[in-house]
Amino acid sequence: MNEIKLFCPASVANVSCGFDVLGFCLEPIGDEMIIRKTSKKGIHIIKIEGQKLPLETQKNVAGVAGLALLEDYPCDHGFEIEIYKGIKAGSGIGSSAASSAGAVFGINELMGKPLNRNELIKYAMKGEELASGSAHADNVSPVLKGGFTVVRCSKTPDVISLPSPSELHATIIHPKIELRTSDARAVLKKKINLEKAVEQWGNLAALVSGLCTNDYDLIGRSLVDVVIEPHRSALIPGFKELKKAAIDSGALGCGISGSGPSVFALSRGRETALRVQEEMNNTFKKFNIEYELHLSKINSKGIQIISSK
Amino acid sequence: MNEIKLFCPASVANVSCGFDVLGFCLEPIGDEMIIRKTSKKGIHIIKIEGQKLPLETQKNVAGVAGLALLEDYPCDHGFEIEIYKGIKAGSGIGSSAASSAGAVFGINELMGKPLNRNELIKYAMKGEELASGSAHADNVSPVLKGGFTVVRCSKTPDVISLPSPSELHATIIHPKIELRTSDARAVLKKKINLEKAVEQWGNLAALVSGLCTNDYDLIGRSLVDVVIEPHRSALIPGFKELKKAAIDSGALGCGISGSGPSVFALSRGRETALRVQEEMNNTFKKFNIEYELHLSKINSKGIQIISSK
Repeated sequence: MNEIKLFCPASVANVSCGFDVLGFCLEPIGDEMIIRKTSKKGIHIIKIEGQKLPLETQKNVAGVAGLALLEDYPCDHGFEIEIYKGIKAGSGIGSSAASSAGAVFGINELMGKPLNRNELIKYAMKGEELASGSAHADNVSPVLKGGFTVVRCSKTPDVISLPSPSELHATIIHPKIELRTSDARAVLKKKINLEKAVEQWGNLAALVSGLCTNDYDLIGRSLVDVVIEPHRSALIPGFKELKKAAIDSGALGCGISGSGPSVFALSRGRETALRVQEEMNNTFKKFNIEYELHLSKINSKGIQIISSK
Repeated sequence: MNEIKLFCPASVANVSCGFDVLGFCLEPIGDEMIIRKTSKKGIHIIKIEGQKLPLETQKNVAGVAGLALLEDYPCDHGFEIEIYKGIKAGSGIGSSAASSAGAVFGINELMGKPLNRNELIKYAMKGEELASGSAHADNVSPVLKGGFTVVRCSKTPDVISLPSPSELHATIIHPKIELRTSDARAVLKKKINLEKAVEQWGNLAALVSGLCTNDYDLIGRSLVDVVIEPHRSALIPGFKELKKAAIDSGALGCGISGSGPSVFALSRGRETALRVQEEMNNTFKKFNIEYELHLSKINSKGIQIISSK
């Protein structure tokens, strides 16, 4: 195999009570990447369409993630990468994760698959480190493994796949405002009340149980974030109204996707998710902010190979 | 039915990363209670053996829990209670929870079972409130429901049962020192680092997944407490040595039971649990502190009726 074409999906991290640990993979939104072997060593990003992003290997998340992999698995040839961005940078649905994960996934395939998807996480995290300053795994994990994932420990990393109840649908709204990750980080307190932390981990434990047992009611009761959302939601115009619209129209829960500005809702069944989408649309169009809406099942597969030759 | 005799088991709360939310029920250790209908209204504790505890209804956790139930479900007769304590008060394995849960369970049975085990939790919590000043549900829940339980929310309360992998065994050591709940509470900080909280809820999410999927390795990796144990373990002589002995001899994890002084270890299989028990015994006998050791499967049934007439 000399060339591979991939679909690299978007993802939702910081899922309500699962700040920094829980994420899930989306289905229809994503980038395409073509990666091919070259005689020239190293990694060369030769084309990026859809977003203005740096072509320099060291400044591009795909480049940096790929280099990290090649450092541990040296290769007598190189790789060139074309990126066709379907995900907007800074949207909060894992734009950098899709590119980072795509690069290491594709290179690994072209090298004859020395690593499995789990083992690729730590290399993809290097791209995240470049993008946000911290090597978090909560977006690259669902992109690589699909479905819902829990990052038990980001140092090892140790990532666990959770079941995705088949009727779950996500509605995503992406208000086109600039919200820097650094600003979203700055509003968080370094210390939190133990009482709130207990409430948060009680909800997360229940949410994991709900996902494992297809208990949609329990999933709904547990999709609560008492630690992060109260601070970050103030940075997203219309968040309160969007959340109310989503819940009132039947969503199980609604929260900030990643560090925003995208907002996700989870619903049981496509019909409810469509109603939620419609009500979020009706609500947000009053805000005079450009936005995009997406509807997605939980993508249980993660990155997929479109073609190879 | 005029009289019921119950086995009210001990329990472990604050299971490692699950402070204030995760507990499990023990099998061989527990109290016996006899509850019978009387023409005299109200609740009358007529006998307590095995521990020095107040007979006055309002000062006894069983009395207070029972009264709370009768307030919502008034009755034209009363109940007398005999308590045969097998669990030492202040041991950290749910002595007050056994009595509180036993009282409401028995009275409910004698009233013709208007409530299910789940609905009894909030009444049993009234006993816990008397015992410790806070109406926590993390001991009474596994006592009433059996197995592992997560308290998603203690206000409602909303308690979820988790599966108990069948090979799990608990080893419990109870050092006979006095450790007041108030002292154990006093060493805790009201605020904790967000970073530590994330580590804690990542572990708890993974632990719940491990319990749901019988993944003993994952259970072992997740039985970590980076928030409470570092503070409370200093109050338990020999904790560090006990934990090392347990882990070195094959335990999946080891932590403080409730607010101590008891220490629990969880192991896969009875053989390992016996080795862990032996090594904890060898380790602790050097400390010149009286102690008891117990070995238990996870009790999936909770409170059981021994006899009724």
